[in-house]
Amino acid sequence: MRSPAEAAPSHLWVPELADPGGVVELSREESHYLKRVCRARVGDFASATDGRGALARLRVASVGERVRAEVESCEPGQPAEARRRALVLCGAPEGRRGDWLVEKLAELGIETWQPIDCARERWRVSATTLARWRRLAVAALRQSRRRHLMDVREPIGLEGLASLLPPGSSRWVADPAGRRGAQPPARPGWVVGAVGPAGGFEPREKAELACLGFEPMCLSDGRLRAETAALAWGAWWASGGA
Amino acid sequence: MRSPAEAAPSHLWVPELADPGGVVELSREESHYLKRVCRARVGDFASATDGRGALARLRVASVGERVRAEVESCEPGQPAEARRRALVLCGAPEGRRGDWLVEKLAELGIETWQPIDCARERWRVSATTLARWRRLAVAALRQSRRRHLMDVREPIGLEGLASLLPPGSSRWVADPAGRRGAQPPARPGWVVGAVGPAGGFEPREKAELACLGFEPMCLSDGRLRAETAALAWGAWWASGGA
Repeated sequence: MRSPAEAAPSHLWVPELADPGGVVELSREESHYLKRVCRARVGDFASATDGRGALARLRVASVGERVRAEVESCEPGQPAEARRRALVLCGAPEGRRGDWLVEKLAELGIETWQPIDCARERWRVSATTLARWRRLAVAALRQSRRRHLMDVREPIGLEGLASLLPPGSSRWVADPAGRRGAQPPARPGWVVGAVGPAGGFEPREKAELACLGFEPMCLSDGRLRAETAALAWGAWWASGGA
Repeated sequence: MRSPAEAAPSHLWVPELADPGGVVELSREESHYLKRVCRARVGDFASATDGRGALARLRVASVGERVRAEVESCEPGQPAEARRRALVLCGAPEGRRGDWLVEKLAELGIETWQPIDCARERWRVSATTLARWRRLAVAALRQSRRRHLMDVREPIGLEGLASLLPPGSSRWVADPAGRRGAQPPARPGWVVGAVGPAGGFEPREKAELACLGFEPMCLSDGRLRAETAALAWGAWWASGGA
């Protein structure tokens, strides 16, 4: 007593979508998710994104170890210049608090996650950490039914920052002494938020950020942990928009 | 080679502060924190709040099993009507995601944390859970150097809500179909945010909230998990203010 529609809420990440009429073979992870978590069967529908904006409707064709599905339709994503986009730069928090931060930022629709190594704290990110973060980003994409997969980057030092900032982006740095009550930009384009590590940015680092056009903003009337500040910034950005 | 000033960053929760000149005996938890985490010694200073707005300067008088400290000065808190105050109502998320939510909301300065039991999901909160949440709220108070301890409440059903809402409060319910880009109120007074459980509010529950004056607001352009929505709401509220 189960209609095919029941499987419809499932949303998948399929980096290589086929054209309508074509068939895709899902990855091991997406197959598992569709079979075990969504309990999909042959004939069920699911939505899928390539993580770069395209959104397809899939129909399950076979449920073996790897699920195969037919692409029924596929609509392209918005052009990049029409989207609100956010880049989060974040110094290392204490302990393993990075994990849930990655999950939450991906849910909020942050486009790029860039850990930064600072004078007072460096990230300890192994290949295993990066792989775990990328799995968390995919799970958040499914959960939030997003069309873009958050780009999870390896940590870099502040000195590498200038070349990485989108030209013309609006830039903010979390700072208890900064401006309060700023409105998140509603218009399309890149917005960058920078948050210091557990011990905060050093004065020299703050000066570097100021030279790069980062405006200090206050996210709360209390001191926030690094990961809380990064998340609060993401939520502030996400609350804006038309 | 250590000056008494080094211990100054410590911030304690002392529910029963004495008048200036008086001596307080710290709880076991605060004594441990001061001795082991902050490594305070006799003569060191610390700040302390009663969690209801008062802020005192303490000088460590003796470091036994329980630390005793003299209250050097104490300033009262702002009158309640001069403060921005937030109440978060939240349905049960999946798993043990309540723990970090409590920590983060307390960091952001939410005044009252009220879990709500909804048709689609009920909290499973034991006395142990409540005790753990209250410890997390105290730790966040220390971390954020706040003057108010977040009030951690036991779950209630939606039917008990009306009597609990501060009169005249501004009320918001997280809803992907709600208004986007609302400004958090900067003025003093209560603001209430309601977030549905993992499966969302039922239509009947949404209608009840509408009758109580809750306005739907959209926190993100994607679906958020219950705990992410509650946190995003808290961050949105915290970003406002003068």
